[in-house]
Amino acid sequence: MQEKQVKEITNRDVDFAQWYTDVCIKAELIDYSSVKGCMIIRPYGYAIWENIQKELDKRFKETGHQNVYMPMFIPESLLNKEKDHVEGFAPEVAWVTQGGEEELKERLCVRPTSETLFCEHYANIVKSYRDLPKLYNQWCSVVRWEKTTRPFLRSREFLWQEGHTVHATAEEAKEETKKMLNLYADFCEEYLAIPVVRGEKTEKEKFAGAENTYTIEALMHNGIALQSATSHYFGDNFAKAFHMTYLDKENQLKYMFQTSWGITTRIIGAVIMTHGDDHGLVLPPNVAPIKVSIIPIGKNHPEVLEKSYEMAKELKLLNIECEVDDSDKTPGYRFADCEMRGIPIRVELGPRDLENNTCVLVRRDTLEKTEVNLEEAAEEIIRLLVDIQDQMFLRAKMRRDDMTKTVTTMEEMKTLAETENGFIRANWCGKRECEDKIKEEVGVTSRCIPWEEEFTGGKCVCCQEEATQLVYWGKQY
Amino acid sequence: MQEKQVKEITNRDVDFAQWYTDVCIKAELIDYSSVKGCMIIRPYGYAIWENIQKELDKRFKETGHQNVYMPMFIPESLLNKEKDHVEGFAPEVAWVTQGGEEELKERLCVRPTSETLFCEHYANIVKSYRDLPKLYNQWCSVVRWEKTTRPFLRSREFLWQEGHTVHATAEEAKEETKKMLNLYADFCEEYLAIPVVRGEKTEKEKFAGAENTYTIEALMHNGIALQSATSHYFGDNFAKAFHMTYLDKENQLKYMFQTSWGITTRIIGAVIMTHGDDHGLVLPPNVAPIKVSIIPIGKNHPEVLEKSYEMAKELKLLNIECEVDDSDKTPGYRFADCEMRGIPIRVELGPRDLENNTCVLVRRDTLEKTEVNLEEAAEEIIRLLVDIQDQMFLRAKMRRDDMTKTVTTMEEMKTLAETENGFIRANWCGKRECEDKIKEEVGVTSRCIPWEEEFTGGKCVCCQEEATQLVYWGKQY
Repeated sequence: MQEKQVKEITNRDVDFAQWYTDVCIKAELIDYSSVKGCMIIRPYGYAIWENIQKELDKRFKETGHQNVYMPMFIPESLLNKEKDHVEGFAPEVAWVTQGGEEELKERLCVRPTSETLFCEHYANIVKSYRDLPKLYNQWCSVVRWEKTTRPFLRSREFLWQEGHTVHATAEEAKEETKKMLNLYADFCEEYLAIPVVRGEKTEKEKFAGAENTYTIEALMHNGIALQSATSHYFGDNFAKAFHMTYLDKENQLKYMFQTSWGITTRIIGAVIMTHGDDHGLVLPPNVAPIKVSIIPIGKNHPEVLEKSYEMAKELKLLNIECEVDDSDKTPGYRFADCEMRGIPIRVELGPRDLENNTCVLVRRDTLEKTEVNLEEAAEEIIRLLVDIQDQMFLRAKMRRDDMTKTVTTMEEMKTLAETENGFIRANWCGKRECEDKIKEEVGVTSRCIPWEEEFTGGKCVCCQEEATQLVYWGKQY
Repeated sequence: MQEKQVKEITNRDVDFAQWYTDVCIKAELIDYSSVKGCMIIRPYGYAIWENIQKELDKRFKETGHQNVYMPMFIPESLLNKEKDHVEGFAPEVAWVTQGGEEELKERLCVRPTSETLFCEHYANIVKSYRDLPKLYNQWCSVVRWEKTTRPFLRSREFLWQEGHTVHATAEEAKEETKKMLNLYADFCEEYLAIPVVRGEKTEKEKFAGAENTYTIEALMHNGIALQSATSHYFGDNFAKAFHMTYLDKENQLKYMFQTSWGITTRIIGAVIMTHGDDHGLVLPPNVAPIKVSIIPIGKNHPEVLEKSYEMAKELKLLNIECEVDDSDKTPGYRFADCEMRGIPIRVELGPRDLENNTCVLVRRDTLEKTEVNLEEAAEEIIRLLVDIQDQMFLRAKMRRDDMTKTVTTMEEMKTLAETENGFIRANWCGKRECEDKIKEEVGVTSRCIPWEEEFTGGKCVCCQEEATQLVYWGKQY
């Protein structure tokens, strides 16, 4: 039975895209419906999102942010107020044209993002410097009318949070933009065990209406980059379009400075594609809804079942979420199912183990087995959970580093991109035409100008003129 | 200053509707935007909703429910599958007709409720009796195209949770329906200090497509009833329309039995209108985002400020959410502001108090003051919070009971309804024509057939023929 279920998913290295979809379905993260391009997030997938929400919400509140809820509709005239913004979003929004029996005088779009609504609200409630800063966040769903869709990575509706803040000075807003990017990066590394490159988007890749866009970029197991969260500095662009002014200490009317930042359910796709393997999902312990699955073996041994429940009770008292899989399926089937769902540790407990006062712990990331005394099981589980989290991050980082290569000429860049996927480090002169040419000839786009690596000079990989920055390039989702 | 702010809201007994709107705005619960009929839920209002969510979500999970997320759109053909349901909802839905640049082949409605999506999903994932029951819940926003709207009570978009469950037997589904209604009732009484009448809706008032609708009805301060949560039993009506079948233990194909149940942000309106007074909001301690506001008095006394922060730290260690209002506004202004926001306890601390090693505690519900020793303040605050919660419920219940009157003839009923608002208890024969006549002539509708009061026989208040049940009647929001 174990064999059967494992074989039901495509081999990861044979067809990564199909493997990904198989995991989403077989681990019961999502399902499809008759609503084209949208997905159903099933209980197990949603429990992962709830953990992500809980952890991020805690970090947002610790940094002084407050949650609000804005309408899901945006009148067309409001969306049109900031020119760059509407140009970026109008081609991909869904329009409500009828409400009940009446045709609407003005179309409403279903929010693709809520800058315009926050702008209007801030213009309304902020009067003086005493009202600043405003540090708001919203958890909601948004809609972008995508043509091709994939579970978590790209769907017409997705869940996210969007932070929107206004500040008295440009410096303060810039600081907020960077602070939130670092918050996302720390969250991804500490909580999801996903190593990220922090950096800035080029002019071409930045958000519609932003002055600067910062990003964290992760590298999936197949070497494709995934933009995992972004943070935008708007200067006073929107403030001017929406008349967002306040009276400063000298009673002068000033424009506010603004930021926004967001992370979406797409990050669940990043967890799957960073850690998953041919047995299915592999969840880092911190984000796993179930940390331990206890599997009693031997149908006619009530004492095994009893001990399993006792252990579950003990773990719950230690705040370790666990389950007892006492279904009537074969042990092999239950082992495979537990692996498919990526549960960090499975406990195997049979009559012979019980006689010896032991049980077997199997860690999901390496599938290594350890036999431990029953009295020491809880302690060992705690130790293992910490170790799995650490090791998963280190392995992902090592893989990412292995897949990050530096080139100095277009020839090298082309050869590398044809041979393997991954991050390509290459200097750039800052000119749009070189960026376009690299995309056209090599098939990679600029992912970011990294924060944590100093640019030490050199020539542009494309035109061989003086470079102005180091850029990470890659194929992306 | 205190005088000024208090006078800014309308007197509750002079114009209840205006008083209500004033509180929503002045306590900074909501704001308006250019999106007609929708509201912005501001940080303080949203923090109340977050507390409601957290407590309910805990209770849902304790009773075995799991959260999921369904698409926000419903294709017209899917909505049309159950006849009664579509008749009830089609006139008030918003329609998306365009996605990006393309006109849609089939219109999508923005969900007014998600029965149809859950039905399709359950038909898809449930194969055998082993897959039952499924106990799902969803937190989301829904849209109903209302003509006249009011903050929290009626808006085109509102936040809610919708539970949708399927079961192998009618008995089990019926039990779930009632269990969830009791869960809502207990939550309202224990957490929001709102007494409710539990009961069943008449045929006329039940949910579109349901076999039975259960409701909890609360009575606002002005004697108008507010339907606070509902729970529906669908039998196999939807199951037949959506081919929701499963194989039972004897390998026979059977229809599933279904329920749904929901509570919305409207319940925040109930909190305001049950407990609020001429000074503003009054929040029951359990749901209050801030339980204690410490107000230091005397600008040039750093030791007062220091002691205030020390007290705040002590309360936080005891898990009591509190704030120090150290703004440069006058004490009177800060007292009034704290009252407007309905914070259960305010602590007044001045230099003379500090000399005497005392502080003054003012409870929001009665505005009673107590002087206590600083060492005993925390203990007294804990005691007071419990007492406020209890007393608020008892006062609301006493008022509700005072406003509940029994009549036996139409004359009595008309006179009563003309003189005062409140619940009217009156027997009914069960005929629709009597229900319609009562609405037309008396101006009240049936709120519910109460669960907790036995019907002991009598005549129908309208036709004076044999009655079949006791009914609560009233005007409603």
